[in-house]
Amino acid sequence: MITTDILIIGAGPTGLFAVFEAGLLKLKCHIIDALPQPGGQLTELYPKKPIFDIPGFPSVLAGDLVTNLMDQIKQFQPGFTLNEKAETIDKLDDGTFIVTTNKGTKHHAKAVAIAGGLGSFEPRKPQLPNIEAYEENGVEYFVKNPEQFRDKRIVIAGGGDSALDWSIFLADVAKEVTLVHRRNEFRGALDSVEKVQELKHQGKINLITPAEVTNVLGNGKVEALEIDREGEKSVFETDYFIPLFGLTPKLGPIANWGLEIEKNAIKVNNALDYQTNIEGIYAIGDINTYPGKLKLILCGFHEATLMCQSVYSRLNPGKKYVLKYTTVSGVDGFDGTRKEAEKQVVKAIE
Amino acid sequence: MITTDILIIGAGPTGLFAVFEAGLLKLKCHIIDALPQPGGQLTELYPKKPIFDIPGFPSVLAGDLVTNLMDQIKQFQPGFTLNEKAETIDKLDDGTFIVTTNKGTKHHAKAVAIAGGLGSFEPRKPQLPNIEAYEENGVEYFVKNPEQFRDKRIVIAGGGDSALDWSIFLADVAKEVTLVHRRNEFRGALDSVEKVQELKHQGKINLITPAEVTNVLGNGKVEALEIDREGEKSVFETDYFIPLFGLTPKLGPIANWGLEIEKNAIKVNNALDYQTNIEGIYAIGDINTYPGKLKLILCGFHEATLMCQSVYSRLNPGKKYVLKYTTVSGVDGFDGTRKEAEKQVVKAIE
Repeated sequence: MITTDILIIGAGPTGLFAVFEAGLLKLKCHIIDALPQPGGQLTELYPKKPIFDIPGFPSVLAGDLVTNLMDQIKQFQPGFTLNEKAETIDKLDDGTFIVTTNKGTKHHAKAVAIAGGLGSFEPRKPQLPNIEAYEENGVEYFVKNPEQFRDKRIVIAGGGDSALDWSIFLADVAKEVTLVHRRNEFRGALDSVEKVQELKHQGKINLITPAEVTNVLGNGKVEALEIDREGEKSVFETDYFIPLFGLTPKLGPIANWGLEIEKNAIKVNNALDYQTNIEGIYAIGDINTYPGKLKLILCGFHEATLMCQSVYSRLNPGKKYVLKYTTVSGVDGFDGTRKEAEKQVVKAIE
Repeated sequence: MITTDILIIGAGPTGLFAVFEAGLLKLKCHIIDALPQPGGQLTELYPKKPIFDIPGFPSVLAGDLVTNLMDQIKQFQPGFTLNEKAETIDKLDDGTFIVTTNKGTKHHAKAVAIAGGLGSFEPRKPQLPNIEAYEENGVEYFVKNPEQFRDKRIVIAGGGDSALDWSIFLADVAKEVTLVHRRNEFRGALDSVEKVQELKHQGKINLITPAEVTNVLGNGKVEALEIDREGEKSVFETDYFIPLFGLTPKLGPIANWGLEIEKNAIKVNNALDYQTNIEGIYAIGDINTYPGKLKLILCGFHEATLMCQSVYSRLNPGKKYVLKYTTVSGVDGFDGTRKEAEKQVVKAIE
């Protein structure tokens, strides 16, 4: 059982920044995310794209913002349960919560903050008979650990940035990379398209287009794929099949937690502290809704901060400790580090 | 008469960032500030101190944050009325406002956003007879333009960072710099104290301590000061007297605008859009108050954003345009520039 003060569901920018504000209040955080790495859609969907509306950054790459946030929170030593999805929640008699993931990992927390963005990202799966039987037996919808594919034969399907970028990356890792797409045209960053073209010429990526994978074959695990190229079917041997057809955000099991939902978002008590209809459960960032709500990262930062202050007040009734200027207070990490402004000296001049 | 869509009172980080969000909505901003430069207390009080709680910056110097914000908003070409204080406001029959400064500059705006921080910074003045008669006639409480002191004799009074830093800076500009402080000990950054010590040894700064200026002398303008050093009075000739005894924030004339005030802050309608009791006048950042309010820069950024969206809706009833991801929409400047994420291409691989 993992125990923490605030359990944050969602490791996007809002969830990550909450760790910092909680830390200032001496509250410990643990984060659950369905994706294999922190950063939410910033890391998974557009790490190399610039964001222009983060205050103080005329432009920042989404991936860099996540790196910065991870650096900013590291002294508060957040825990992570990655690759798992929060599935059930139980409120105990003492007002604390047990959250269990789809893999059975249990988390005990004094408060829960849902920072799930647009929802947890579910892969768009190809409509193939029995594909589910091969999941985790050769069919992978995410590249969680590239080393898994070292010296293996892999087939990637898809025509967007994910398919292009992973084909490029794994060309140096796998024994054989084959990219299958139903058109000749790919849609992605110019760089990536040109790089795949080059790797194809070098014989490092096989390209099969226009074509579709129509069946998964194998005894208990993937051994081959049936591929239809302009009506002509053939069997293609491989160790792995990685369909990268994009992700769709789904509210998922959270929709059954008894929270008030409006237009696919969780209703919170306006700006008071972004608490939901269940005391002790908060919703912050793109996943919540209230009058005047804007789905912007900078709004999530503010909401995360007010949430932390509210959790502190709930856990420490009567105590007055309010978040204030870090320039004055400094920042004490849970790892014993301290950040602070240079101290003034009082010194005679002679 | 200066005309604009949103008139922002206060050029601190919240006021500056409002220009960006307004710009995304095609609204033009003009900013009034009592200080000689943008940045509010970040620039005036602690430009070289680090801030640790700006999301995405593990640490950022206050002065650098202001520079970044100025860079971020420049394509929206904000106007500035600096060195002037908003004094009166008149609401016209059409719901627009005329704001007049202490120097008589008039601004006509469709909405007003007060982003005045802790208030406008007023210098702490020494209690000297007739000092007011010499203000702008040799007595200066701010160094607005260092060139004003080129080849002049100046006396700076004070024992903190401002007095130290301006003595150092003006030692290269003025003919003669004299620093008067009532103690031998100075309170400031170690660097600055040591630098003044060094400049004193080089004969570039005269130091008179422990001593106090007890009178300003001169016919219509400053010609000399009476200085009391441990009970012994003497007359010291100078062209300028610059007392730097710190600043105190004052709500000032805004307190008489008919706004609901609570504990020196302006009440706003909770998180709806940070509007005050007067329609069309908003208060954002440290100057406002509502249940759960935290006086943090990152909260000001959020409040500024919701304010801009609200002004847009007021000015464009029925029109639907909501702030969204800049990664997707890009940013179109009023100066014709455009920032945008690299476009995806659709391209065949052969």
